[in-house]
Amino acid sequence: MKSTRLGIVLLTLLLVMFAPGSAFAKDPLPSWNDGPVKKAILEFVAEVTNEKGGQYVEPAERIATFDNDGTLWVESPMYTQALFAFDRVKELAPQHPEWKTTQPFKGVLEGDMKAVGATGMKGLMEIIMATHSGMTAAEFEKDVSDWLATTKQSKFKRLYTELIYQPQLELLDYLRANGFKTFIVSGGGIAFMRPITEKVYGIPPEQVVGSSVVAEFQVKDGKPALVRQPKINFINDKAGKPVGIYQHIGRRPILAFGNSDSDMQMIEYTMAGKGRRMGLFVHHTDAKREYAYDRKSHVGTLDKALDRAAAEGWIIVDMKKDWKQIFPEK
Amino acid sequence: MKSTRLGIVLLTLLLVMFAPGSAFAKDPLPSWNDGPVKKAILEFVAEVTNEKGGQYVEPAERIATFDNDGTLWVESPMYTQALFAFDRVKELAPQHPEWKTTQPFKGVLEGDMKAVGATGMKGLMEIIMATHSGMTAAEFEKDVSDWLATTKQSKFKRLYTELIYQPQLELLDYLRANGFKTFIVSGGGIAFMRPITEKVYGIPPEQVVGSSVVAEFQVKDGKPALVRQPKINFINDKAGKPVGIYQHIGRRPILAFGNSDSDMQMIEYTMAGKGRRMGLFVHHTDAKREYAYDRKSHVGTLDKALDRAAAEGWIIVDMKKDWKQIFPEK
Repeated sequence: MKSTRLGIVLLTLLLVMFAPGSAFAKDPLPSWNDGPVKKAILEFVAEVTNEKGGQYVEPAERIATFDNDGTLWVESPMYTQALFAFDRVKELAPQHPEWKTTQPFKGVLEGDMKAVGATGMKGLMEIIMATHSGMTAAEFEKDVSDWLATTKQSKFKRLYTELIYQPQLELLDYLRANGFKTFIVSGGGIAFMRPITEKVYGIPPEQVVGSSVVAEFQVKDGKPALVRQPKINFINDKAGKPVGIYQHIGRRPILAFGNSDSDMQMIEYTMAGKGRRMGLFVHHTDAKREYAYDRKSHVGTLDKALDRAAAEGWIIVDMKKDWKQIFPEK
Repeated sequence: MKSTRLGIVLLTLLLVMFAPGSAFAKDPLPSWNDGPVKKAILEFVAEVTNEKGGQYVEPAERIATFDNDGTLWVESPMYTQALFAFDRVKELAPQHPEWKTTQPFKGVLEGDMKAVGATGMKGLMEIIMATHSGMTAAEFEKDVSDWLATTKQSKFKRLYTELIYQPQLELLDYLRANGFKTFIVSGGGIAFMRPITEKVYGIPPEQVVGSSVVAEFQVKDGKPALVRQPKINFINDKAGKPVGIYQHIGRRPILAFGNSDSDMQMIEYTMAGKGRRMGLFVHHTDAKREYAYDRKSHVGTLDKALDRAAAEGWIIVDMKKDWKQIFPEK
């Protein structure tokens, strides 16, 4: 019976070593530096999952929402989806000779971003419609997948799907391991994100909320298909984010993570619910390992949220200080 | 060592008895009568979950969509949501003295359904808007929950949430036990269904797709809230169903279940995908245990789908013949 007793001793030892809270337990967030932010996250998760504590939340209500651009992946120097649209304009140009002389397309083709910018939101919408509609859902998915599989980011010379934040991947895994359901709630196009979210973030398409164009069910070439129309269906940004959450998820998150003033309403809505809540913003402070920008940036402007954070109890995650590693290893 | 060997023998016996396909295995669909429909369902699930077979489908792609009215719960003699709206008109009437003399409200208050019907879709929309908008999301959820918790159906004198189909509850459980993700895709209001779907069907709010009104994020009484607007956002019916699936789920189902011509496009879209697919319609044929209606019914009209079913490979579920039991026991 000696070997049995030895087995029990070893088993007990293992249980103690890997018990949550044990000094031997594996750190679930190894790319987060120790400090008040990491501590606050670990405490929040411990409290909402502790059935005997006063802040317990049923697993079904453990909804966590994450912005995408600048929160889960790089958004500098320009939103990935805008770069995709510009590249598509170049590819489609032979079929549109008029673009050579018409803004904003002329600007895109000539690399004159100032001219593109001068056309404002109206110009941007024209570019989006010209590149994001008129095809079937399956065709657009292929356009996006092909582009993301081959196009490298300017500063890091890596695919956009590799320029995702390692600390956030760990946080997503950690939340899911603790019974959370993780969602993306982004101003970006829902159909631009869905082809990669499952593989890259472990978030299935049905848990992605984003902006969309109108789609129509048509029978094309004898086959039923969804055809993307040149008309905005919904803009899932700013005050649109809580609306997108309501329409799509139907429950209020208990944790929301963003990085810009566009995420403020999502976080306000999250924090206004009953019980324990957590709202966080990534502050891009690391010019060397990623980018440094906030109040005056043309992407991911973080200004009012910085001013309000302390009073509102929002947590500002300092990329330089709080993140040990930015991207996954090559 | 004798007790150990006995243990192994017993364990083996248990494994054999409850192995899938064993004659001792528990029937996963006890309220379905044996016959070609039940057989087809069991074979479909066996094939798409058999990793070694040619029809295997990854768990992530095992999406099943179910219509609600007439597919998961009773829709005769009138859609539950319409009855809710009529009752709400009566409750709200004291605040709207003008309704006493204005159709369609006058008709609702006087129980004159012919007068209500004469106002057509425009009148119905007025009733929906008067009863489904102007309040916060939380207030509307309470209106619905209170009504469903107290109002009994005319024929069966039971709550609507008890007039759900037992065979479908078993099918939902069986699909989920086989790695499927189950969704409701209904023409009904998304916010009318969500308060009860998790408890009644095991389908969480985020897996409910339906029609909706526009919502606005507002700060009301110092608190952020979503306020329902008197404007249709989306009608998730007929050709709207595949669109709702695209926008909300982002994957094509491999199994879709409806009961009326309004579900045809959802089932066409489902069947047009690659690989093994299954499309089913409940045919209400049981005047005694439930209701009998199809081609000429004003609710859940099943006409064109009946004509096309054989050629398209759609399965018609004959309620009287295929279902051993209709509702759960009291």
